[in-house]
Amino acid sequence: MIISRNDYIERLSGYRREIYVKGEKIENFVEHPNIRPAINAIAFTYDLAAQKEEYSPFSELVHQKVNRLNYVNRTPEDLIARLDYQRELSMRTGTCHYRCPGADAICSLYPTTKALDQRLDTDYHQKFLAFLKEIQSKDYACTGALTDTKGDRSKRPKEARDMYVHVVEKSDAGIVVSGAKIHQSGAFAADVNFVLPTQTFKQGEEEFAIAFAVTPEDEGVKFILQSTGYQAKFREGGSFEPGNFKYGDRLTCTVIFDNVFIPWDRVFVFEDLEANRHLLTGFAVSHRCAGAACKAGFMDSMIGAASLMLKANGLEKVAALKQKIGEMVGISEAAYGIAIGAATKGYEDWGVYQPNTLIANAGKVIGVDGLNKVIMNLAEIAGGIPVTAPSEFDLKNPEIGALVEKYLSANPEFTTEERLKIIKFIEFWVTSSHLLGGIHGGGSPAASIIFLQILADIKSKEEAVKEALGLK
Amino acid sequence: MIISRNDYIERLSGYRREIYVKGEKIENFVEHPNIRPAINAIAFTYDLAAQKEEYSPFSELVHQKVNRLNYVNRTPEDLIARLDYQRELSMRTGTCHYRCPGADAICSLYPTTKALDQRLDTDYHQKFLAFLKEIQSKDYACTGALTDTKGDRSKRPKEARDMYVHVVEKSDAGIVVSGAKIHQSGAFAADVNFVLPTQTFKQGEEEFAIAFAVTPEDEGVKFILQSTGYQAKFREGGSFEPGNFKYGDRLTCTVIFDNVFIPWDRVFVFEDLEANRHLLTGFAVSHRCAGAACKAGFMDSMIGAASLMLKANGLEKVAALKQKIGEMVGISEAAYGIAIGAATKGYEDWGVYQPNTLIANAGKVIGVDGLNKVIMNLAEIAGGIPVTAPSEFDLKNPEIGALVEKYLSANPEFTTEERLKIIKFIEFWVTSSHLLGGIHGGGSPAASIIFLQILADIKSKEEAVKEALGLK
Amino acid sequence: MIISRNDYIERLSGYRREIYVKGEKIENFVEHPNIRPAINAIAFTYDLAAQKEEYSPFSELVHQKVNRLNYVNRTPEDLIARLDYQRELSMRTGTCHYRCPGADAICSLYPTTKALDQRLDTDYHQKFLAFLKEIQSKDYACTGALTDTKGDRSKRPKEARDMYVHVVEKSDAGIVVSGAKIHQSGAFAADVNFVLPTQTFKQGEEEFAIAFAVTPEDEGVKFILQSTGYQAKFREGGSFEPGNFKYGDRLTCTVIFDNVFIPWDRVFVFEDLEANRHLLTGFAVSHRCAGAACKAGFMDSMIGAASLMLKANGLEKVAALKQKIGEMVGISEAAYGIAIGAATKGYEDWGVYQPNTLIANAGKVIGVDGLNKVIMNLAEIAGGIPVTAPSEFDLKNPEIGALVEKYLSANPEFTTEERLKIIKFIEFWVTSSHLLGGIHGGGSPAASIIFLQILADIKSKEEAVKEALGLK
Amino acid sequence: MIISRNDYIERLSGYRREIYVKGEKIENFVEHPNIRPAINAIAFTYDLAAQKEEYSPFSELVHQKVNRLNYVNRTPEDLIARLDYQRELSMRTGTCHYRCPGADAICSLYPTTKALDQRLDTDYHQKFLAFLKEIQSKDYACTGALTDTKGDRSKRPKEARDMYVHVVEKSDAGIVVSGAKIHQSGAFAADVNFVLPTQTFKQGEEEFAIAFAVTPEDEGVKFILQSTGYQAKFREGGSFEPGNFKYGDRLTCTVIFDNVFIPWDRVFVFEDLEANRHLLTGFAVSHRCAGAACKAGFMDSMIGAASLMLKANGLEKVAALKQKIGEMVGISEAAYGIAIGAATKGYEDWGVYQPNTLIANAGKVIGVDGLNKVIMNLAEIAGGIPVTAPSEFDLKNPEIGALVEKYLSANPEFTTEERLKIIKFIEFWVTSSHLLGGIHGGGSPAASIIFLQILADIKSKEEAVKEALGLK
Repeated sequence: MIISRNDYIERLSGYRREIYVKGEKIENFVEHPNIRPAINAIAFTYDLAAQKEEYSPFSELVHQKVNRLNYVNRTPEDLIARLDYQRELSMRTGTCHYRCPGADAICSLYPTTKALDQRLDTDYHQKFLAFLKEIQSKDYACTGALTDTKGDRSKRPKEARDMYVHVVEKSDAGIVVSGAKIHQSGAFAADVNFVLPTQTFKQGEEEFAIAFAVTPEDEGVKFILQSTGYQAKFREGGSFEPGNFKYGDRLTCTVIFDNVFIPWDRVFVFEDLEANRHLLTGFAVSHRCAGAACKAGFMDSMIGAASLMLKANGLEKVAALKQKIGEMVGISEAAYGIAIGAATKGYEDWGVYQPNTLIANAGKVIGVDGLNKVIMNLAEIAGGIPVTAPSEFDLKNPEIGALVEKYLSANPEFTTEERLKIIKFIEFWVTSSHLLGGIHGGGSPAASIIFLQILADIKSKEEAVKEALGLK
Repeated sequence: MIISRNDYIERLSGYRREIYVKGEKIENFVEHPNIRPAINAIAFTYDLAAQKEEYSPFSELVHQKVNRLNYVNRTPEDLIARLDYQRELSMRTGTCHYRCPGADAICSLYPTTKALDQRLDTDYHQKFLAFLKEIQSKDYACTGALTDTKGDRSKRPKEARDMYVHVVEKSDAGIVVSGAKIHQSGAFAADVNFVLPTQTFKQGEEEFAIAFAVTPEDEGVKFILQSTGYQAKFREGGSFEPGNFKYGDRLTCTVIFDNVFIPWDRVFVFEDLEANRHLLTGFAVSHRCAGAACKAGFMDSMIGAASLMLKANGLEKVAALKQKIGEMVGISEAAYGIAIGAATKGYEDWGVYQPNTLIANAGKVIGVDGLNKVIMNLAEIAGGIPVTAPSEFDLKNPEIGALVEKYLSANPEFTTEERLKIIKFIEFWVTSSHLLGGIHGGGSPAASIIFLQILADIKSKEEAVKEALGLK
Repeated sequence: MIISRNDYIERLSGYRREIYVKGEKIENFVEHPNIRPAINAIAFTYDLAAQKEEYSPFSELVHQKVNRLNYVNRTPEDLIARLDYQRELSMRTGTCHYRCPGADAICSLYPTTKALDQRLDTDYHQKFLAFLKEIQSKDYACTGALTDTKGDRSKRPKEARDMYVHVVEKSDAGIVVSGAKIHQSGAFAADVNFVLPTQTFKQGEEEFAIAFAVTPEDEGVKFILQSTGYQAKFREGGSFEPGNFKYGDRLTCTVIFDNVFIPWDRVFVFEDLEANRHLLTGFAVSHRCAGAACKAGFMDSMIGAASLMLKANGLEKVAALKQKIGEMVGISEAAYGIAIGAATKGYEDWGVYQPNTLIANAGKVIGVDGLNKVIMNLAEIAGGIPVTAPSEFDLKNPEIGALVEKYLSANPEFTTEERLKIIKFIEFWVTSSHLLGGIHGGGSPAASIIFLQILADIKSKEEAVKEALGLK
Repeated sequence: MIISRNDYIERLSGYRREIYVKGEKIENFVEHPNIRPAINAIAFTYDLAAQKEEYSPFSELVHQKVNRLNYVNRTPEDLIARLDYQRELSMRTGTCHYRCPGADAICSLYPTTKALDQRLDTDYHQKFLAFLKEIQSKDYACTGALTDTKGDRSKRPKEARDMYVHVVEKSDAGIVVSGAKIHQSGAFAADVNFVLPTQTFKQGEEEFAIAFAVTPEDEGVKFILQSTGYQAKFREGGSFEPGNFKYGDRLTCTVIFDNVFIPWDRVFVFEDLEANRHLLTGFAVSHRCAGAACKAGFMDSMIGAASLMLKANGLEKVAALKQKIGEMVGISEAAYGIAIGAATKGYEDWGVYQPNTLIANAGKVIGVDGLNKVIMNLAEIAGGIPVTAPSEFDLKNPEIGALVEKYLSANPEFTTEERLKIIKFIEFWVTSSHLLGGIHGGGSPAASIIFLQILADIKSKEEAVKEALGLK
């Protein structure tokens, strides 16, 4: 089913959730200034799915149209449609839409549970399919949580058990888990949170090799929001002062599992090292590929902002600045091209079509460099004013408003307020949490480089050289 | 005279100033959370000058010791001492100390006025020296203001007169000026603001070719503070939540001159195109050289933070991460080395010793690239947590504080609060206005590249090639 | 038809050609040490096409299998197969295979002539198809020539007519052309050279807007080979001294048209500005896309060489060096991914399927940066020895051979000769003409950035930002 | 004494030397086309020293003027004069002048032997001073050799003794050494070769911890020249075809010590681990600092070439290309600035003034990145023609010379031959061994980064952050 933005928000309003912002427990979380932007961004996924057919494929599982991000990809075309959807979402919201790791979790739990059942004669896949049917039918917004807090990295997980989500009790009804996941983008605004392991584990560490889903009725789940300057700005209000005032920054939280009971129906991997590895590999490749398309969308937003800024300043004809826009376009298209390339040269994994592992990881590495370069170009184009401008409150102040109005004006085709909106939007891009989010979301570039080094078929490249040189 | 931090703050408290923050006029500005950090940073310049002799040279002008940043440099050693002072200030405060453009203004007004008098038989230099004596004797904190708002850049200044500080009235007593300067770091917390032209001007644009000084008694000067997320965080309080809680972000403002009367005694260039050019050249080279040393100090602060973060995470023995620290050190030392090189190979300008023009501009270009690279390395080392961590308020919340305490802990040699302080400090470095400030402060890298292309002795390089090739 | 490497070489041996190397006219060009490597590289295209079915598609034009590089692409799959072919050719020969611009010329002349005929009611397309049939049937190796010598760039073409290939005579039988094309990779070793305009032209410059094909029987065509150090090395002989001894460097020449008669049958664009633009756009996008795949193959060769070098030195377990290999893999896969992405998101042009314009140009920009980075990594891994090692002649010298043998040995799993072969192959990569060829082949990165800036749909990006900000 | 270029060449002609080029023993080495350019470059050091007083300081050791590169630096000014000398030599010859490691050896053997004597009550310093007096008095050209062949890097030196220069015999008269040094720039054209250890060694490896000097009379020293394409080009002759035809590429060799007897008078470190470390540290810092100045000179040469190329092409007014020149200038000045900064902030080491360790190493890292960037800019400016142009032999060929003349002409202010000379000179810069030489000369950037990480005062940076955050 494809629901509307209002359906989603209404459903969300019915949840009881333990959410903390800046040390305070939030009552009406749907209206909280630090949470609402994430809800708006997710709501936009419903809007866009309703507008464009290709973002609402027909699911044979539930015999109806479902959201592209709750869908199990079968073909390259499926994957490409998802990437196009994400690029457009990123461009139009200028931020995370939060459902991406949910899609990655679905596309990696599907093959993992199927392979697991075949190996161990279990019924994880059926349980997963049943849950997925519910997700698709109700058009749930899903997120995915991986990163454990880890604590002292010089210790192995068993020496720091609390720092890794793990099973504390087990009964016929289900399991009780404890631990915390950090860097959880939008978890508090979703219907379902998939919880996946943070890394692969060694023999003897099986207790951490678990995957399950959390729903709003689960007791003991606590969401503690991030606390950056952007959040403080949102709390202060204003009509456009926070820059990306509608959709906000990349809104993340720490999710604490304080002895949370999970019924077996929502446990999809239980203490199995091989399934853990299968799951992580699938999730990583799916997420890193999507991340490249997503970054292209962010860059598109920055290109749009840069172009508007040039116009607002009367600089749109300066060749050296237009060249900088051209460079930004090149980087955006490169990131997108890599994502599409990965999708085109993907592989089948127990019925799911996944992107090419090497190209997806390349997308991560190039994407991070590119995001940084695009931000730098935007910063060069914009000048210093995104971090030095007065606020909208100054513009509206009766004593000095007229002076601010006068001195912030430029190209008369833009009102001062319009120009200030663009400035604040660029401030958002250059000082928000997006750069760090882009670097570390889906794993660091360093992790991808290790992947690339291990997974590449170096041997065939060596053989080519040997053949050319007549070696051996 | 060398005064103490308290002397400075007490004097400041006596000023009546029209300062706006977030649309509101501030009463007790010295205690305002968005202003106090700048005052603390400037106060630290007094502390450090008191601690280290080389930062308080003897001035023959006033026959006493004066602050290094109010001093007229005569030798390379003078300049190097200033650079060392600035690097240390930057490293220890992690932010701007705000007196640097004041020093640049002093060192460029000195030769400009001297040359001007010689050319036109005027008395600007005596007026300037008289004013400088007061500055040195009272150990004033001075800033320098250059950037006009410019408005629509497709117009020449005469078509957009309001957008450039200009003379609106002239009498025997002085001049009345109108306009605004943007990007003014710390102006509201200084004793004196030097106001310099934003660029060189053509014949017919003499009205904009003016330089003067503003003091606290001048009516019509309005300071409107920047409004970034960091400022909002400071307004929300907390003991360490804003990261660089003592010294703050790079605190800037827009300064509006609403028909401000300036007596002739404080007018140092009046409608003179040649003096304008002399002044700007001197200011630019002085500021860009200092900027390279200053960036080295910022990088040092980031290196310190990165190293502490590795320890707090138990990662201090990971070779790949130590290598990243090594790269950061290399960039910091390179920026510093360039500054020292520029100072060593400088030139004499009517009695003032100025840094080498080419090397100083090279410092700008390399410094910006380097600052970005160092921030990226810091971000890679720190992981995503600087933008996703809970706040100190969550840590202190009775309901969830203990859980936050537990899940944010890592290496037991650091308390959770200590680790969170380091995390928040890194958040400051990667999301504050420093990157943009570093790019555009003292002019953009693009401006420096044009300088380099014009000023370089390309001919001698061509000759060398011709000689090697036997051409001509 | 698919011919064999021997068929191709035999046919080539039958041609009379005016070729100059180092100031001398070459008699038996097929055996000349500076020409033979290019012939070997082209011959390898026949080998590989014979080995892998997907590189020999069925052509409906001639109702038989033809080489992938003489084929008119109809679908994304066609294009992807070509890209895979090229990546493999580049990896396995470590150099240019020379038929790529021929393929680009075919795929851009096809739609250009078709559109031209429709517009002007001419018969260029039929003539082109007739010629193409011959090419496909005989499995000709084709190249494409674009770059005019241009001379003094401050002049328009009409002021420097000689510097642009142009028509000097016209009759019922055909045209006589004059001028020269530079940077012609492998032209002397091909069966057919397509000659295309160097740029778009303005009204009044129609005489330069011509495209035609040159064949071995054409009188007045003179090939003058490049003269780099690598060519000198090849002339000195040795069994492996020149590094890539079998396939050589990127072998290019200047082609002079000394009043060459071209019958109308081989004239495909004649003094038509619009067709000129159509042709160039198609050629550029086709070539830049292929160039990204091709660079991936070069990088693969360098990865193979780097990996062998590490082993030969006993360094294959050093983490920091393996990381460098991982980075190289990431860049190679990124370049390839962009090419595949461009092919997947391409467009139909009068019956030909062409790659996506923006992504293909992005591939150029990223590809050049990447090629440089990969060469730098290879250089770091290899150490200084590729440019300081003794020659194979020293190794074989009776007096010092044993000492050279001893002191150049390392990991005993490699003989000294094997290690020296790898070293010389790396010397080839870091000092050959590939870097410059990669930068400028298919147009400079600067040209691509201008393309990107002009062709990008900036408006939609601006609209997205406006919508997010509620502007207008 | 300051001798003339002719004195030097005449003296050299008197030496009997065993030199191999391309597998052949060379008889009249002074006139050999692969050796003569190095002699010309060294000869130019004598020319320039004669021209500029500051390059011929007065030595108290021999009470006369000596060459700056045979001098023991006592002050920052000494060091700066050396750096200026080297930058100018590099700019004017476009290649290595070969005496630099000799200077580094002198300035590091001086303090090493002095400290060694003090520690062990030996007389190494007196022996060294006696030898240095001879060098200074006779104005010898000295080089320095460090890099052992190392062989299989997975083995410790004792397991691969042959791969490290070591003592094979010891008597009252002296020692007999065996082994080989690679990457020896210009050794065959010098009067004296200092031989230093390749690295620090551990206890039990004392036999490798030796330093001594080789002179022309030493039997068993064999020089085997490198063999790159550039050398082949030189062997083919021509008046300007090899680009940097007068001074050549960076000419290196492998030096084999085939049981060479060294009298004690020329042994300066003998099996002493501590002196080994002292020596290497001093050499490394001295060489890396000089390397930064030297690279600035190379970049100057490339800037000159780029500027001439723009003019020869009629492109000197294109803003985007001038910007690229500006960037090159910035990088050159940055490298130079770092060298000067290191020299200014150096340290005293047993009477010798050495550059700042951190800044010198930063110079290495930034210098390599910069050299690569400058080469890339030069390549972009020059276009593809440096690797595709015909040879001077084609230009002079009676059949096609006129056509080549015509089609290679451009801006009429340059003859075609002049333009071709510039093109060939740029070919030299982009395909010679300079890039690799720049990366690895004086140790790889990776080695410098490790140095930086170890030597930096990270603690003081941590303390600054702790103080700002109130930690501890």
